[in-house]
Amino acid sequence: MNEIYLDNSATTMTCEEAAQTACRMMTLCYGNPSSLHSKGHEAAIELEKARASCAGLLGCEKEEIFFTSGGTESNNTAVFGAARALKRRGNKIITTAFEHSSVGEAVQQLEKDGFEVICLKPDQKGRFSPEELREVIDDKTILVSIMYVNNETGAIQPIECVRRIIERAKAPALFHVDAVQAFGKLPVKPKKWGIDLLSASSHKIHGPKGAGLLYVRKGARILPLHFGGEQEQKLRPGTEPVALLCAMGEAIRQLPDLSQELTQMQTLNRFCREQLAGIENVHINSDLDCLPYILNFSVEGIRSETMLHYLAEKGIYVSSGSACARGKKSHVLAAMGLSPARIDSAVRVSFSRYNTLSDVEELVKEIKNANNTLARSRQK
Amino acid sequence: MNEIYLDNSATTMTCEEAAQTACRMMTLCYGNPSSLHSKGHEAAIELEKARASCAGLLGCEKEEIFFTSGGTESNNTAVFGAARALKRRGNKIITTAFEHSSVGEAVQQLEKDGFEVICLKPDQKGRFSPEELREVIDDKTILVSIMYVNNETGAIQPIECVRRIIERAKAPALFHVDAVQAFGKLPVKPKKWGIDLLSASSHKIHGPKGAGLLYVRKGARILPLHFGGEQEQKLRPGTEPVALLCAMGEAIRQLPDLSQELTQMQTLNRFCREQLAGIENVHINSDLDCLPYILNFSVEGIRSETMLHYLAEKGIYVSSGSACARGKKSHVLAAMGLSPARIDSAVRVSFSRYNTLSDVEELVKEIKNANNTLARSRQK
Repeated sequence: MNEIYLDNSATTMTCEEAAQTACRMMTLCYGNPSSLHSKGHEAAIELEKARASCAGLLGCEKEEIFFTSGGTESNNTAVFGAARALKRRGNKIITTAFEHSSVGEAVQQLEKDGFEVICLKPDQKGRFSPEELREVIDDKTILVSIMYVNNETGAIQPIECVRRIIERAKAPALFHVDAVQAFGKLPVKPKKWGIDLLSASSHKIHGPKGAGLLYVRKGARILPLHFGGEQEQKLRPGTEPVALLCAMGEAIRQLPDLSQELTQMQTLNRFCREQLAGIENVHINSDLDCLPYILNFSVEGIRSETMLHYLAEKGIYVSSGSACARGKKSHVLAAMGLSPARIDSAVRVSFSRYNTLSDVEELVKEIKNANNTLARSRQK
Repeated sequence: MNEIYLDNSATTMTCEEAAQTACRMMTLCYGNPSSLHSKGHEAAIELEKARASCAGLLGCEKEEIFFTSGGTESNNTAVFGAARALKRRGNKIITTAFEHSSVGEAVQQLEKDGFEVICLKPDQKGRFSPEELREVIDDKTILVSIMYVNNETGAIQPIECVRRIIERAKAPALFHVDAVQAFGKLPVKPKKWGIDLLSASSHKIHGPKGAGLLYVRKGARILPLHFGGEQEQKLRPGTEPVALLCAMGEAIRQLPDLSQELTQMQTLNRFCREQLAGIENVHINSDLDCLPYILNFSVEGIRSETMLHYLAEKGIYVSSGSACARGKKSHVLAAMGLSPARIDSAVRVSFSRYNTLSDVEELVKEIKNANNTLARSRQK
């Protein structure tokens, strides 16, 4: 059976070049980067090459890149690390109602510890309102954490204006951006936008799972979650997953020109929208302004999971929302005010550079078939 | 130049089979194990196969294996997780003075938070005294954390008696064992020895760096360090480093018969001891009872780093102590009461199944040469 993988926001296939890099690092350049001999030094050089590739993509200094085990750890480190470092300067944390659970549940923990947490609501397009941020921020706000691109809808957030709002409020806040779904897809400019902390992950951009990074602006101070060795300037001790990190570096170097790929995604996304628009009961949940890599829609009357399994049987892989949520109801679509019927039937399609128009044609064909075949389940 | 890698306690070469497994998982079986479609399910099955291999080696249930990013995270999760879960039942933490820094610095943090931390001293052989443990433990002790095999000397700790001591003291303590240097080398029996938490790592046994596990006995409750997705029963959320974990599983399956390999190591170790014994100024720091994978000795008058670089130039890779400590003075040898001269000149050789007697011959030859060549530095 031909496989059509349209779940690239959950994870991507590691590109051949990155996998080869990992394999080479494991079997040949296998030294411990902390070892003082040349075998260790050799590995350390490769690791720094990977760091340079990350820094290059973000337009920052190498020393501002801290390797982690992935997006969840980066987000946790940013949120807990900032809150613990700044707790003497204030008690308020501002985030949104549509963050990934690795930010959402981290701030919930902090709420239990006595912090005041405010969650900005999204509008119908899935975006937070800078006005609302302006209203709730104060000089006791120590952290503002807002994702750049939402992982379920693709909604691009107006994060460029946040730094100014923090400054006007004279808040001591660090500004954290979960850029996991944007990194390698949109230009991400921590320097220009005044971002202090930024999370990114390898496995969303054809690198392997288990590697990520936290950008920490020079001068921004956060406390570590882990304690032990001297690695990553002591912010993240433990022997580095060298093979994975070098593979992440290679995946970055293999990225096509961002704007060129964005054009390809726009073509796929528009074609998919047009085709879906003609199908009964289909509602598009992703606004036209969303990142074209992601398209969220509902086929009312057919439960997400039913649709997902139906498509999987045809070799087409999509998701009902975040993979990390394992089929739980989407808090993102709920926060956007969608009806329960729309939420229960939501499908997220997410593209990569390996997808083609014919993949979309197959998808649409099977959505139509599902609409007919699964009609009975609609009666329930 | 022929490479002789004798730094296997710092890290090992990933075996070919494990690297191939990683590569296959990255490029073919690349689904997110949390995805609900068959592509995800396929990855989840492979992940569970890896978990079964880990559980098999420890003689425990699959559900007691929690994957982590490596030994440091496992140790941190055990120490912080236990202390935070049990803080209402007591305030005392007992560990040793010769733990890896990922336990040592974690308990230091807890000390800052108000816990009472007691560090058992090693004897001249590098082993803690069960007597001393019996004396200091009380019914307010909530954690006992003792490594199984010391990473610098190879000293095997008498951990089998700890559970009984905890019970006699009526302590609510969880018993954590850092088994990173023992896993895959000695039989490790958490069930038989009444261990609650046990850390192990992939990259010490010819698996890749960035993967490890924490054994958590069914019924033992600790609090997580990370928050987010549903992975690893919520104790360790975040997309799993699937390729690495499957490679770790493969590395375990590739392990030779433990006792057979132990015999090979004994042969290497004894030969090395005998040969070194004939060299002037050489003192063996590892007792005869130590795990034969590790041999620590001092060449008095030649600083560790000088020796390390001298050997590296000949293509022989050893270390001065823990890689994670990056050349800092050994707290382990210091705790054993060795003289500063011995500590400053300590060399750790650590074997793997890929080493041969001729590797040892080369090493000894070059140690002799160093002893002559670097004689001048001894005058200083």
